[in-house]
Amino acid sequence: VIVVLSGGVGAARFLSGLVQVVDPAEITAVVNTGDDTVLHGLHISPDIDTVTYTLAGAVNPVTGWGLTGETWAAMSALERLGGASWFRLGDGDLGTHLYRTGRLAEGATLSEVTAEVARAWNLSLRIVPVTNDRLRTRLRLVDGEEVEFQDYFVRLRHSVPVSAVRFDGAAQARPAPGVLEALGEADLVVVAPSNPVVSIAPIVAVPGVREVLESRRESVVAISPIIAGAALKGPADRLLTELTGASSVTSVARLISPWAATLVIDVVDKDLVGEVEAEGVHAVVAPTVMHDRDASAELARAVLAVHRR
Amino acid sequence: VIVVLSGGVGAARFLSGLVQVVDPAEITAVVNTGDDTVLHGLHISPDIDTVTYTLAGAVNPVTGWGLTGETWAAMSALERLGGASWFRLGDGDLGTHLYRTGRLAEGATLSEVTAEVARAWNLSLRIVPVTNDRLRTRLRLVDGEEVEFQDYFVRLRHSVPVSAVRFDGAAQARPAPGVLEALGEADLVVVAPSNPVVSIAPIVAVPGVREVLESRRESVVAISPIIAGAALKGPADRLLTELTGASSVTSVARLISPWAATLVIDVVDKDLVGEVEAEGVHAVVAPTVMHDRDASAELARAVLAVHRR
Repeated sequence: VIVVLSGGVGAARFLSGLVQVVDPAEITAVVNTGDDTVLHGLHISPDIDTVTYTLAGAVNPVTGWGLTGETWAAMSALERLGGASWFRLGDGDLGTHLYRTGRLAEGATLSEVTAEVARAWNLSLRIVPVTNDRLRTRLRLVDGEEVEFQDYFVRLRHSVPVSAVRFDGAAQARPAPGVLEALGEADLVVVAPSNPVVSIAPIVAVPGVREVLESRRESVVAISPIIAGAALKGPADRLLTELTGASSVTSVARLISPWAATLVIDVVDKDLVGEVEAEGVHAVVAPTVMHDRDASAELARAVLAVHRR
Repeated sequence: VIVVLSGGVGAARFLSGLVQVVDPAEITAVVNTGDDTVLHGLHISPDIDTVTYTLAGAVNPVTGWGLTGETWAAMSALERLGGASWFRLGDGDLGTHLYRTGRLAEGATLSEVTAEVARAWNLSLRIVPVTNDRLRTRLRLVDGEEVEFQDYFVRLRHSVPVSAVRFDGAAQARPAPGVLEALGEADLVVVAPSNPVVSIAPIVAVPGVREVLESRRESVVAISPIIAGAALKGPADRLLTELTGASSVTSVARLISPWAATLVIDVVDKDLVGEVEAEGVHAVVAPTVMHDRDASAELARAVLAVHRR
């Protein structure tokens, strides 16, 4: 069994490679819910949906999130009324949010709803939210204001400097059923190339997760989302610079070092192997840019090879 | 100023005639909210939306509710997930519910949201919910089960016998700002040809409304939704039979008699003038079937003529 700690787009692309080289029934994605939000009354779980839609082959290939062939009638109507439309909700995507919100109101857990949606898409990998309890990534901006993750990420287009990140609710959150067991029993735990500060860190902040990772550090392999100092997507590079002083595979290595023994870095960063290993993390060099499904499968094979070695 | 006590489709059609013969700025529709419900987390106000969409010229002319040219991508997605889809929410219509739910969550009142939506549709008549507080029509079925209005009306297709109706929350509900003032100052109060048991009764059940109507009984003119014993749309005839023993203009007259001096009945019921007047209600005979906008305007003129007489 392989467990993948997952954020959104980067994790979804890695998983779409992994399912080509491993029986999907042997894969559990433990997904960040710190990005979750309630908008217009609807419970939205962006990372879970991105993973689900991508594995279902239904994701919009241009954006990497949302559904392909989406229509926008609800958003147009909302905009005409003057409603907040900065968070784009396509019509088909709204069906997912209506379903989730309705089921949660009936008393179902987010785990249950997530499994139901995955089943409806005929997925056989397990997709599990890290917690069914409230977990909210909040960012303090340099002007002192604290905002919700989606406010920062979408509304402010992650273009404002951040001075601190915290995970509201994390201390009280319980891991979702099966999360600690899966992490404890997995042959391999992969940390997907997701934002270490706002996608992976909230997963590790849920009580018990960090402890089980630390106890199995040799089985934990991370993939750097930073390539030549930059993130392919999103604000990982900016956030690393703002919060740790530098954006490099070395700063990623420093963050994960307490609970991950290995970091896969891109071939363009091969000269930094020594720096990474000075952080106490074994460095493995491989092509990590997932241009397409073949590249994703190749990266998955490289990660499995680390593990088998 | 003319105030119209309004349910859904019948009221909307009457109002679409009235705006042709009276300056819309002189019209206030006080709309039933006993049909309101929360579905999938969204606050839905079916009667308010039917009135708004109809007056905006945007209503689906076939159903009498929902938007014309509507698409159904969200419902299709919800259905595929196995979600409850008996209450049909079109994609454009969802924009309204997203807007309303978001604004209510921000602390706006239903009155404010309703006015904002009407303004966005460039309507100059006032559309006011009877109350901003919770009001829920509940029906007891003959098997003893009590259901919400939309469960009865949509899910059960109003085809099950009912033994009682109550308006949950009515005793605690306060009339929305301006409702009692408008009723007290209006030159004419029209009771639209809406279901007297489940559309008009919840309006009258809000504390203060009945009292002001009683005090101005001579200025209150109702239009019978029952024609030759039957309702043109919906379960008014069944409910009248089940709850009052008969469905006729006479049973309508009996219900409204305490607070309305006049009932407009259709020409096909002209032989029942005596029966109606025996209930203490002045009967006026006019064509009441609103086939089209011209017929609606004609009915509006007939109602105004009653008043001017």
